[in-house]
Amino acid sequence: MQASEIRALFAVASRPEVVSLAGGMPFVQALNMDLMAETVSKLLRERGAVALQYGSGQGDVGLREQILEVMADVKVSAHPDDIVVTTGSQMALDLVTRVFCDPGDVVLVEAPSYVGALGVFRAYECEVIHVAMDDEGLNPIALQEAISTLAAQGRKAKMLYTIPSFHNPAGVTQGQPRRAEILAIAQRAGVLLLEDDPYGLLGFEGEPPAAIRSHDEEGVIYLGSFSKTIASGLRVGWAVAPHGVREKLVLAAESAVLCPSNYSQLTISEYLATQPWREQIKSYRELYRERRDALLESLEQLMPPGTTWTTPAGGFYSWLTLPNGLDAKAMLPRAVTALVAYVPGTGFYVNGSGHENMRLSYCYPEPDRIREGVRRLAGVIEGELEIAATFGTGSALHSDSGSDSPGSNVPAPNLQ
Amino acid sequence: MQASEIRALFAVASRPEVVSLAGGMPFVQALNMDLMAETVSKLLRERGAVALQYGSGQGDVGLREQILEVMADVKVSAHPDDIVVTTGSQMALDLVTRVFCDPGDVVLVEAPSYVGALGVFRAYECEVIHVAMDDEGLNPIALQEAISTLAAQGRKAKMLYTIPSFHNPAGVTQGQPRRAEILAIAQRAGVLLLEDDPYGLLGFEGEPPAAIRSHDEEGVIYLGSFSKTIASGLRVGWAVAPHGVREKLVLAAESAVLCPSNYSQLTISEYLATQPWREQIKSYRELYRERRDALLESLEQLMPPGTTWTTPAGGFYSWLTLPNGLDAKAMLPRAVTALVAYVPGTGFYVNGSGHENMRLSYCYPEPDRIREGVRRLAGVIEGELEIAATFGTGSALHSDSGSDSPGSNVPAPNLQ
Repeated sequence: MQASEIRALFAVASRPEVVSLAGGMPFVQALNMDLMAETVSKLLRERGAVALQYGSGQGDVGLREQILEVMADVKVSAHPDDIVVTTGSQMALDLVTRVFCDPGDVVLVEAPSYVGALGVFRAYECEVIHVAMDDEGLNPIALQEAISTLAAQGRKAKMLYTIPSFHNPAGVTQGQPRRAEILAIAQRAGVLLLEDDPYGLLGFEGEPPAAIRSHDEEGVIYLGSFSKTIASGLRVGWAVAPHGVREKLVLAAESAVLCPSNYSQLTISEYLATQPWREQIKSYRELYRERRDALLESLEQLMPPGTTWTTPAGGFYSWLTLPNGLDAKAMLPRAVTALVAYVPGTGFYVNGSGHENMRLSYCYPEPDRIREGVRRLAGVIEGELEIAATFGTGSALHSDSGSDSPGSNVPAPNLQ
Repeated sequence: MQASEIRALFAVASRPEVVSLAGGMPFVQALNMDLMAETVSKLLRERGAVALQYGSGQGDVGLREQILEVMADVKVSAHPDDIVVTTGSQMALDLVTRVFCDPGDVVLVEAPSYVGALGVFRAYECEVIHVAMDDEGLNPIALQEAISTLAAQGRKAKMLYTIPSFHNPAGVTQGQPRRAEILAIAQRAGVLLLEDDPYGLLGFEGEPPAAIRSHDEEGVIYLGSFSKTIASGLRVGWAVAPHGVREKLVLAAESAVLCPSNYSQLTISEYLATQPWREQIKSYRELYRERRDALLESLEQLMPPGTTWTTPAGGFYSWLTLPNGLDAKAMLPRAVTALVAYVPGTGFYVNGSGHENMRLSYCYPEPDRIREGVRRLAGVIEGELEIAATFGTGSALHSDSGSDSPGSNVPAPNLQ
């Protein structure tokens, strides 16, 4: 499928009758819109001349202090000067890559990895190398092997990009000993560790996992975001970086957008200052846990034997593996015809892997819709298995994506 | 002066007792904050789930339709599909340069030119060549000469960047015949014309000048912004580009920030739909005209002979030339000591020109403050002239900025 076909497909998939397990949209409907409206009214009446004005390229200093408080929940400690506020953490990804990477530089990423990051690395002409994961996320042995293989070629990776908590798309989480091990390997090899943590506060049990950056700040850039904990439409994320890097990021940010929106920043600042934001994140967690349970229970009940999936302890996603060599990308048009959508796994790789995988998102649809979606998806997979049993697992079941660009079969996050 | 010295200087200059004619902040205090608060409250209560959600990488389609209506005032006609909404028009500048320019590519700019554009061209390692202006803006003869000189070297400019209306920092405006002439030269030479028009609706007399893009759309990318007509803190600008370019811009935008803020976009959309925005822009125009008049009248009354300045017919800035070889950059610390600030001209050049120039902004201070600022500035210049008359125009009067990076002596727009 070409990009245009994918777009057409997802245009169909965004119809209300389709259950979309594809997009990564937070369920912002759960916010109390009256409270939001009051918050913004108060802001504009009391500080409108600041909220509607240009601001600092590094971001509002009051918000940067509040971000420290938010990050305390994942045990990151920093100084407000270490923080650069960005137009969503996507922009932080872009700026870090812009500052650190030259064309041809090697970036290590998980297998699979976040499609928006792959797109940035590609835009800056980096060479992306996937490193294997297991049920506890990025595998340290595989990481060391990748670094050693490069060293044997006289090469060195510039950066390791990882999502340690509630991985997108894999749905797995690194334990603390593993985080320490990964950091030690990266530090020993002199590889910058770029920690992306948009979902860290959205765990379903116990305390939020302590960030890798909490183990040691040397050689780590931490990216955070309000997109999933408050609202994605505000486009406010941030990077925490050592002094020398931070200065470069601010200069790059000023060149890219002059300054982040004071309007969005101060809306969040006012919200954090006047609303019970920890309670609100807790209610998001409960909502997403209920949906995760609906997904896992119905997968368990309905999926044909041989199908496997990850069990996310937080975040938005489970990563499903199809049985008997079925191809998730080739199957997608039939799934959409059966009124269910997902993201084929190939979009999360740069190397054509992921044909047998799909990402299932449970963040947006209501639990009953999720169950209905899984029922439809199970029917499609069973149909494919019957065809395969009758005709053999022939080429008709396989899509060819060797020449795909990363992310070309992934919808924009707004597509449900 | 180094960047750190400049920062320290502008930190002092931002004290309330200093009259700042330096920054380019719109006077957003003039907005009716109660109306803004009501607008946003209504938006969040009625469409909060959309306003707080991810949106399209190209921007909200409703807002893009409204942008057509806004651009009709400068005679630009386009299709909503031709528009890409960005995080301020600075981001549009960044994306256009990212898409079109490789390191070493030549970009033609006015002499002087907007510091934020020079910063972007530098970030992408373009070679910037300044083209002379006169009282009617970019000089077509000088433009043709620059193009011919390059051709004689077997080279060609990739892009011509121009601000035709109420130029920043020069304060001059291209007439319509000149616009046609400049466009014809660029088209003949196959040079992309990048038209930056943030001030087009802020003219003080008659109709807003028709954009260059209104003459012909071939080979022109038009950049617009709500930063000066509504509010800069929302960070909403846009590019109008031909189909093939537009697709590339959207892909680059998605890589840079995923999508522009729905919250900011829909705030503007709701405002345009429900408030008398043309009336509000008219009141901005009247406010800035009064301030322009205060500046010009007091310059006329107070400046020592030999000082000259441009007479802006709109926008935010006048460009002043000092008498007798005085150096605006060297003089700045003395001006700040006298409690008045401006931007030295050198920041608007990449080639060390502009020592005898300064940009004076009248957009932000009240008229009485502007008059007081000019009085202080005139005193400083007179003092410098006395010293020069006593000791000769020696080197002490001259700053050395040969090794300056563009914009290193220009404050961020938030610094007043």
